[in-house]
Amino acid sequence: MADDRPPSGLRSLLRDDLRGESPYGAPQLAVRAALNTNENSYPVPPEVVADMLAELGETLPGLNRYPDREFTDLRSALAAYLSRGGEPIDPVQVWAGNGSNEVLLHLLQAFGGPGRRAIGFTPSYSMHAIIATTTGTAWTHGRRSTEPGRLFTLAAADVAEQLGALDPHLVFICSPNNPTGTAVGLDVIEAAYEAAPRAVVVVDEAYAEFARPGTPNALTLLAGRERLVVTRTLSKAFALAGGRLGYLAADPELVDLLRLVRMPYHLSAPSQAVARAALRHTDMMLSTVGVVKAQRDRLVAELTALGFAPVPSDANFVLFGGLADAARTWQALLDAGVLVRDVGIPHYLRVTAGTPEETTAFLDALAALGPEHHLGTEKAS
Amino acid sequence: MADDRPPSGLRSLLRDDLRGESPYGAPQLAVRAALNTNENSYPVPPEVVADMLAELGETLPGLNRYPDREFTDLRSALAAYLSRGGEPIDPVQVWAGNGSNEVLLHLLQAFGGPGRRAIGFTPSYSMHAIIATTTGTAWTHGRRSTEPGRLFTLAAADVAEQLGALDPHLVFICSPNNPTGTAVGLDVIEAAYEAAPRAVVVVDEAYAEFARPGTPNALTLLAGRERLVVTRTLSKAFALAGGRLGYLAADPELVDLLRLVRMPYHLSAPSQAVARAALRHTDMMLSTVGVVKAQRDRLVAELTALGFAPVPSDANFVLFGGLADAARTWQALLDAGVLVRDVGIPHYLRVTAGTPEETTAFLDALAALGPEHHLGTEKAS
Repeated sequence: MADDRPPSGLRSLLRDDLRGESPYGAPQLAVRAALNTNENSYPVPPEVVADMLAELGETLPGLNRYPDREFTDLRSALAAYLSRGGEPIDPVQVWAGNGSNEVLLHLLQAFGGPGRRAIGFTPSYSMHAIIATTTGTAWTHGRRSTEPGRLFTLAAADVAEQLGALDPHLVFICSPNNPTGTAVGLDVIEAAYEAAPRAVVVVDEAYAEFARPGTPNALTLLAGRERLVVTRTLSKAFALAGGRLGYLAADPELVDLLRLVRMPYHLSAPSQAVARAALRHTDMMLSTVGVVKAQRDRLVAELTALGFAPVPSDANFVLFGGLADAARTWQALLDAGVLVRDVGIPHYLRVTAGTPEETTAFLDALAALGPEHHLGTEKAS
Repeated sequence: MADDRPPSGLRSLLRDDLRGESPYGAPQLAVRAALNTNENSYPVPPEVVADMLAELGETLPGLNRYPDREFTDLRSALAAYLSRGGEPIDPVQVWAGNGSNEVLLHLLQAFGGPGRRAIGFTPSYSMHAIIATTTGTAWTHGRRSTEPGRLFTLAAADVAEQLGALDPHLVFICSPNNPTGTAVGLDVIEAAYEAAPRAVVVVDEAYAEFARPGTPNALTLLAGRERLVVTRTLSKAFALAGGRLGYLAADPELVDLLRLVRMPYHLSAPSQAVARAALRHTDMMLSTVGVVKAQRDRLVAELTALGFAPVPSDANFVLFGGLADAARTWQALLDAGVLVRDVGIPHYLRVTAGTPEETTAFLDALAALGPEHHLGTEKAS
């Protein structure tokens, strides 16, 4: 927007470290297959909508009053959901915000800030670095493996070495990792926790529900680790991206400290009501996870068959390499009505696993592209 | 909470400047008259609830998708509402957040931060200072008049002198001022803008709709002042505190810069839908403003008659002095089922103008207290 207007002095008033920045944000375009933001392609079932409306019918007349600042009922519902995995999680261990971005912001506001250091392992969820910058926390791009066959993975010893050298105040490990898709072994998280003895270690598990069978999650590591935080969201498996409800589980005292930085009444009464109703229908809300995982596995298989190089995925998306020019292929797919994500890794694109029809639309559009989209094949023009 | 548990090292991991802090927050208690947070005591009318539910019925099935990140329709509705005052406000001049606190946070994140200075004129809305601290912005408590008869007011020359000495990056002027209640003259805002030539000047008009007849607002000053920001909220006159929708009007380029610090998709689809529906019923949502103002004026008259010293109010609350011990009177009123606000000014309490019945409950409870609650009367025991 600013580019269309005559220059003015306002940008000069910005905080110094923001002056050269551009806003984060994927395009919001009307296309036949929107596979660029890892949404769940299935709408909220009518039975759940009806229950949400019933709950909202009770809530809306009282909107003249502030909402429950401690979102007590919602925290109980989130704790009950997390406890389904086997490890009992108490409501006082749970915190929530308007999307997991806000939960991450609270963590960085409380434990980061000027003179403090945070690290994540790039490529990973780019908002980790952006939110760190927003809070004045120095960000370090940690390294992932570049070895063929182990590309983008994290090894415990390598993570420990990087953390030992930095002595960070916050560590971000995304598992399953966005945008690469693969979950991290618990040994990596244990090693990170030991190697960064004064850091809050944040495991971003936004995509945990899509993990392949047998993949452990970090909730099992919370007991006895007061600096460990596991973040989750209702935006992905729960198909509630528009409801903006992210949350975390951690030590009760760590959760309590987040009250120092949250805005009072940060979760609106309608947001709380919608999320509570969704959680009452957990099985139904998660009923599409199996279909999505099947499409994810199909993407991996068919992308391989098409001669591309998909990364093993525990998420609802697949990162695939083997593209001659990722930006050109991104545009060609968009021209065919399929929106995927260029995450800035040369020769790679990321595609969300949608409905079978959307997946077909993507695969057909990709297959229809000429050989010049393939990296280094003998057929390249 | 933390006090009940054995000491742990977690607090030591907090940002240094937060370690001694306590969370902000008024008690949320079930009482017969909750007059402590300046809510509108009147519930949302059934016709508006019905329209909100109709809009939500359209919105909820699509919650699997992220909300409109730019909340385009809501911005248009907010701009149309602001334009009712006479000054045309364009949608690109409008920004919104989950409560005006979040809008203020965006301003401080963008234009404040480490090494930068913000000022407000104490006593005022305490969140201004708290959010400044959260963002690492140095806060200066500016002074208000202490002269009898002009107590708590701001004079243009005095404001200009204080700003000239500080050279701040952000200036906060709350008008009508919370907790004192009185609106500020536009000459004060004009003087502040001139005296702080590199500052973003924020006029917090959360209570603007309650102002006494003839009170101007700062929207009329926006034209030609690219550093001026006017913040508003749907929480007060609009009776939508539970909906958490705060907003601002400013230069389009300043608004554009806030995209650098907001969390993507910070406004949920249900929040946008609820606010849009409320704004379609602006006249009905504001229909209680007259009643509330009448109770506000009644409070001023009857508090005076009871021997207390109310401050002239343009808001939906009254600050009144003349108490021997504000904390003791606060507790005595709570014992009688009336919850008011102890804002930390010795000998003063703040009471919200509620329904006629709530106002009566407060005045009766106060009148029933013994003379020992009065400051320095000959009857004091």
